[in-house]
Order: sequence, then structure tokens, then C-alpha cells
Amino acid sequence: MSKVQVIIRLKNGVLDPQGKTAQHALQALGFQEAAQVRIGKFIELELDGANPDQVNTRVREMCEKLLANPVIEDFEILGG
Amino acid sequence: MSKVQVIIRLKNGVLDPQGKTAQHALQALGFQEAAQVRIGKFIELELDGANPDQVNTRVREMCEKLLANPVIEDFEILGG
Repeated sequence: MSKVQVIIRLKNGVLDPQGKTAQHALQALGFQEAAQVRIGKFIELELDGANPDQVNTRVREMCEKLLANPVIEDFEILGG
Repeated sequence: MSKVQVIIRLKNGVLDPQGKTAQHALQALGFQEAAQVRIGKFIELELDGANPDQVNTRVREMCEKLLANPVIEDFEILGG
């Protein structure tokens, strides 16, 4: 059983309305220092009987095929 | 300008229908090793003129008041 984490971020320049909304809400709550908020995903995967040498390759394929949208998102694989 | 990252995870035991859907989709695509998928948030904050000593405290307050739902989510502050 391997555990791998994946961070999915919007690429630079891609608008993030969810993050913008959170930033305005923070400022309205008195957190004036909130200059920018960008919200991505943090995905935790548990892989059964995976060959440790192949985990990174397989997770990269999962990101490219399903977990991330390569047009607007970058992904980073941690652990594995 | 301080940059801080926050990971928001569903607590253990809280159902994650989005993660379950992603897991089934991965298996349908041939990734049979996907035993569990849990999807949280990865939030990147830029804080203006923040006092470095207070960044962690302020970001903790932001999480408790707005960014996380403490009933079902845990948060972890990185950097800052």
C-alpha cells in the first residue's frame, strides 16, 4: 500500500473566482492583509499493491487523464 | 509580503463523495490500484505587510473563521 499526495494548482494567469471570493470575505472579516488567495486541490491517494518504482509514473498518468485539467492546472506529486 | 500554504483535509470518518467518484473513475480507466482517494483543498495565501511573528496566528484565525469548516475539516499551515 503506497500513499501519495498530489497538489493541483491553477496555472498562473488563470482566473480563480473561488479564491477571489475568499479573499474579499477575509478582508470583510478584518483580515486586510489578505492580498491574494488561490485555491487548488490536495488529493491523497492510497494505491494497492503498487510497484514502488512505478508509483510516480502511474500517478502522473492519473493526473493527466483524470485528476487535473492540463489546460488550466498544474500538478505536483509528493511522496510515492 | 508573506506566502503561506494551507492544506484543508476532511477529518477521518467523514464521507468524501467527490473522492469516491474520482476513485471509481480511476478504476474504470484501468487504474485498479486506486484503493482510496480523498480530496481536500490547497490554499495559497499572499499576505501584505504581515508581521512574520503573527502570520501563523492570523492564518490560523482565517482558517477557523472562514477557510475551513472545523466540524468536518482539519487544516495544516505550511510556510509562513
